Amino acid sequence: MTFIAVDWGTTNRRVFLIEDGRVLRTAHDASGAATVQDFPAAVAAIRSRFGDHPILMAGMVGSNIGWRSVPYVPAPAGLADLAAALGRIDEQTAIVPGLSHVADTRTDVMRGEEVQLLGAAAAGLVPMTAMLCQPGTHCKWAMLEQGRVARFTTAMTGELFALIRSHGLLAPQLTGKVADGADFREGVLEGARRDLAASLFGIRAAGLLGRRDDAVSYASGLLIGSDVVARLAEADGQTVYVLADPALGALYSIAIETLGGSSLLIDSHAAFLSGITRLWDLIA
Amino acid sequence: MTFIAVDWGTTNRRVFLIEDGRVLRTAHDASGAATVQDFPAAVAAIRSRFGDHPILMAGMVGSNIGWRSVPYVPAPAGLADLAAALGRIDEQTAIVPGLSHVADTRTDVMRGEEVQLLGAAAAGLVPMTAMLCQPGTHCKWAMLEQGRVARFTTAMTGELFALIRSHGLLAPQLTGKVADGADFREGVLEGARRDLAASLFGIRAAGLLGRRDDAVSYASGLLIGSDVVARLAEADGQTVYVLADPALGALYSIAIETLGGSSLLIDSHAAFLSGITRLWDLIA
Repeated sequence: MTFIAVDWGTTNRRVFLIEDGRVLRTAHDASGAATVQDFPAAVAAIRSRFGDHPILMAGMVGSNIGWRSVPYVPAPAGLADLAAALGRIDEQTAIVPGLSHVADTRTDVMRGEEVQLLGAAAAGLVPMTAMLCQPGTHCKWAMLEQGRVARFTTAMTGELFALIRSHGLLAPQLTGKVADGADFREGVLEGARRDLAASLFGIRAAGLLGRRDDAVSYASGLLIGSDVVARLAEADGQTVYVLADPALGALYSIAIETLGGSSLLIDSHAAFLSGITRLWDLIA
Repeated sequence: MTFIAVDWGTTNRRVFLIEDGRVLRTAHDASGAATVQDFPAAVAAIRSRFGDHPILMAGMVGSNIGWRSVPYVPAPAGLADLAAALGRIDEQTAIVPGLSHVADTRTDVMRGEEVQLLGAAAAGLVPMTAMLCQPGTHCKWAMLEQGRVARFTTAMTGELFALIRSHGLLAPQLTGKVADGADFREGVLEGARRDLAASLFGIRAAGLLGRRDDAVSYASGLLIGSDVVARLAEADGQTVYVLADPALGALYSIAIETLGGSSLLIDSHAAFLSGITRLWDLIA
């Protein structure tokens, strides 16, 4: 059986032509949900390139900036729950729903990451009960229980970093590339004090007093550290499985280990393929 | 004895003509240190308007964006330390230095706020040993001991609020005016969890799920709450004296009391006048 999978985010998308669980062809471009105006035309273009196959999409394509707003499935939820709540455009075209989670006063949502998370467990890349971390603009932390997403937390760690780098008082200091080193790790430890607004001003003050070499790595460590420390209590000594590109994944791993946790990097690409293929098997 | 005091910040300034401790005239305008190009001309214009008197200035006029960079005085420091370290432009014109503070890994600075802080104690508006809070773009929290600034922390609470209101994912939700109410106070309590990047994403998720009426007040409460809770441990049950305009001061007071502290609003204008007049007496 052959189908086309699309991991369709806000700012980019990745298309896979999949036959019997193997990827025959793939393509990546910047036609994210935020830039596409005509989704039927965009999907017709994908079919003209990859063949006239059924298409299963995940991510922001199913949001209010996408093709159609597909209602969130409340956590706890597994692959079967997603398959039962697909947003069907037509018989050959469907969108995977996102997940929502409401815990006491805090509300959370995800769209697209659920395929990776559940796929990682289904493929045996992570245990069926485990803590997973997907760093990025909006970093997702999910607790899997028996192969389902039991609960999750999103931290806008990457977005805050982008905001302070691009605007405001600290921007002129936060130039260059983030790298692991003494400054990054000092940032992680400072972040663990969970006093972000004060720690950020410390970057300004250190700059004025000439006391910080690599401010951008320190700032990255600070934000990642404050994110990690808030989640490590819930990990309760278990390994955190990090799904990310190697550069950002490595920074999260270092932060987790600097703060006394343990981590393993997982192939997020393989996790997505596992998840979307199993969803396909459930509905085909 | 007559002199002119200028509270000269980054984006605005306030000029006072003071005789024997009384304000004869005052003026406020947007000629902050960041916009003035020619400081000698700007000060000549002040003298042509207020009379040819000695001028004592405080704030960012003494920074690298101001007239001359006047070295910071390290805390602990009192009015006599400031008076001994004035930046003298000429015999009739001087700039009050700022304060710096280095505590273990964190560095901090202030320029201008020190006059208010020390003035409040000198005038008896606050005890000689007390915790003071000056809310704003960069909120200052200072511990006074025996009438001197023993240590302080700056949190860029107001700046973070401005960043998320003006840029990024949350900006479209954060419209309207901040007001006290159930949403503000829920934000304060959420802020006390000290998990800012996750709590901020919760605003987005609550918006998508239609669960938050007054997102801008909640976001303000969140940022103020996370600032306040980090400082209340140090206050250790003592009253926090809040020096601010009534609107922002009231929000900080509510946050302090919501989190179990006690607070008193102090007239920041009177505190500045007390501080600058005493400095003048020390040097004249």
